[in-house]
Amino acid sequence: MKNNQFAERVDAIKPFRVMQLLERAAEFEEEGKRVVHFEVGEPDFATADCVVDAGIAALRDGRTKYTQALGIPALRQAVGDYYMSLGVKVDPARVVITSGASGGLTLLAGLLLNPSDELLITDPGYPCNEVFAHLVGAVPRALAVSANERFQPGAAAIAAQWGEHTRGVLLASPANPTGTMLPAREIFDIAQTVAEKHGFFILDEIYQGITGADCEYATGLSIREDLYVLNSFSKFFGMTGWRLGWLVVPEPAVDGLAKLAQNLVISPNSIAQYAALAALGEQAMAIHRARAVTYLERADLLARGLRDLGFVIPVFPDGAFYLYVDVTHTGMNSHEFCWRLIEEYQVAATPGEDFGEHLKECYVRFAYTTDEESIQLGLDRIGEALRKWGALT
Amino acid sequence: MKNNQFAERVDAIKPFRVMQLLERAAEFEEEGKRVVHFEVGEPDFATADCVVDAGIAALRDGRTKYTQALGIPALRQAVGDYYMSLGVKVDPARVVITSGASGGLTLLAGLLLNPSDELLITDPGYPCNEVFAHLVGAVPRALAVSANERFQPGAAAIAAQWGEHTRGVLLASPANPTGTMLPAREIFDIAQTVAEKHGFFILDEIYQGITGADCEYATGLSIREDLYVLNSFSKFFGMTGWRLGWLVVPEPAVDGLAKLAQNLVISPNSIAQYAALAALGEQAMAIHRARAVTYLERADLLARGLRDLGFVIPVFPDGAFYLYVDVTHTGMNSHEFCWRLIEEYQVAATPGEDFGEHLKECYVRFAYTTDEESIQLGLDRIGEALRKWGALT
Repeated sequence: MKNNQFAERVDAIKPFRVMQLLERAAEFEEEGKRVVHFEVGEPDFATADCVVDAGIAALRDGRTKYTQALGIPALRQAVGDYYMSLGVKVDPARVVITSGASGGLTLLAGLLLNPSDELLITDPGYPCNEVFAHLVGAVPRALAVSANERFQPGAAAIAAQWGEHTRGVLLASPANPTGTMLPAREIFDIAQTVAEKHGFFILDEIYQGITGADCEYATGLSIREDLYVLNSFSKFFGMTGWRLGWLVVPEPAVDGLAKLAQNLVISPNSIAQYAALAALGEQAMAIHRARAVTYLERADLLARGLRDLGFVIPVFPDGAFYLYVDVTHTGMNSHEFCWRLIEEYQVAATPGEDFGEHLKECYVRFAYTTDEESIQLGLDRIGEALRKWGALT
Repeated sequence: MKNNQFAERVDAIKPFRVMQLLERAAEFEEEGKRVVHFEVGEPDFATADCVVDAGIAALRDGRTKYTQALGIPALRQAVGDYYMSLGVKVDPARVVITSGASGGLTLLAGLLLNPSDELLITDPGYPCNEVFAHLVGAVPRALAVSANERFQPGAAAIAAQWGEHTRGVLLASPANPTGTMLPAREIFDIAQTVAEKHGFFILDEIYQGITGADCEYATGLSIREDLYVLNSFSKFFGMTGWRLGWLVVPEPAVDGLAKLAQNLVISPNSIAQYAALAALGEQAMAIHRARAVTYLERADLLARGLRDLGFVIPVFPDGAFYLYVDVTHTGMNSHEFCWRLIEEYQVAATPGEDFGEHLKECYVRFAYTTDEESIQLGLDRIGEALRKWGALT
């Protein structure tokens, strides 16, 4: 069979380079060697026990049938209540429960983008974003963002990049791979700019909650009501494998999303929806908040250790669980640095090439989704590596 | 906000007409009236206890993390073994676990269709099929199929309809809403025709297993290896709410699907995957097979009863759990018939308009996803209706 039997978008998808590195890590572990994992974009914590118990109860109660396409009313209400607890009034009718944030982005791409329409995204950014645009025949367009702007674009940059075919912008706060948040002022101004252009503004808040106590806002919805907010039960709520997320959308978008969801999804996983009710409950929230504090402590430990070794972390993250680290002082580009680190010292981290093109050679993403003992071991090994490589400044 | 802020495909999606009828049914039930449900495309059986227990065990074992994008290796192997039990050798590397058949169709649309490409589907057919084409900017093109061809197109019809932009065909066996299977000979010939045109042939087998013992083949894969087969744990395996399905694809398609799944899905629900291992086990399979026999018994009961009342069922189904019934002898079109039936007698069935345009006024889909006592009650009520309406022949 010929390769051109497949759609053009398939060729446009770059493979995750880190996959090969992960395979190498797995090989070392099969050999009995301990690998330190700084490459994993998934919480190391298990789903909280009380959430698991709610999943078991849902199974015992026979919650194994299709649900409403937009999610069970109780969960949409609970998400509304969650926003209320953050000080923002969100009508549950504007909440759409999705099959992970991934499912949410598929629905939003279907709702908002015609073929050949353009979607502005950041570089660096979550690597899958452009594939959701490609899925519907749309064209992702990268906005290069740098450390001196905390890796977030301003309204002026977005206005400048807005072209004839641009329909909207997708930004993340906190962002992957940098952990930085959009300033509240910029959210307002970007939404204003986008509204003037009759476009849309999708704000990815899947790391919402994994932030410091001093963060400027809990959700962009407290700043503007006309956002398409993407969220997930995966990160703060620790429910990755359950594949559940949600959207908050402007009211006129709900009917179109309902039609898309009825046809393309039927319904999100029923068991996960009932478990998510517990994930938003008081008992689980206390656990989730404690974990967010742990992430902050790990961020401090890892950042201090890396800086002591001469690494530059130009921007300390506002949230999520990533440090975006400049490795140029090692004399290696990020790809070479990561490969030598896994091969020689069994420390895995993700080179910048997986997050875009802009300055990809300089940066490595370190995820602190591993415990303090592992972080310390990783730091020790990196220190040893730098000494051996003569890269210690 | 203006309505044209949304993508064109949203306007192209027809709402399910039966939704309003379902709302009416729900109102009657709230009033305390008993509704007979012939409209539900979901098994009335709960997920088998041993499968639920496997789900509970998966939760207890902490199976709540992302899995491989194509599914856990054990489940891909188990699906391969399942085909082996049907007498067909399928390399597990060609099995892709998906978020329901819906997730499978999204991936296939992404893999196979560029914007403006054309996909051949049947009319009548599963109403969501065209939306998967619209999602990726492709164009669905309906092949009208009639009772005298058992509602399945032949290779000649497909060759005749194949146009400059046609890339492939999506057929179902057994089909919704008619329950008919493609003859083995036609599967071979259609695959041959499609191969000559360098196109693709997706065969929807989500009702596979819910068939009579005398059915001509267990899976189209026993006839041709070069099909894209779509299957689901929802129907035969009774796992609708779990949202799990699978694809079997030609080997060259696996890499592209992996890239799409990694980016667009991350992974299917982990708990459902572990439970599905049990669904393919011996204990559960005995239950699933017994349920398939029950569907056949219900089909006989319902068809006999409807025919006794003068309805024409031009084609008895080979499988699934639907009768596609000609209601013209009532003097009403199918829409009017269904609405009078719910309003006056609280019997719900789905008018042909939800499955396409071709002869939609003549046909009503009766789903026998309800027990024999309910079926008999429904028949009694329909008989009473016809007598009152003077439509009894």
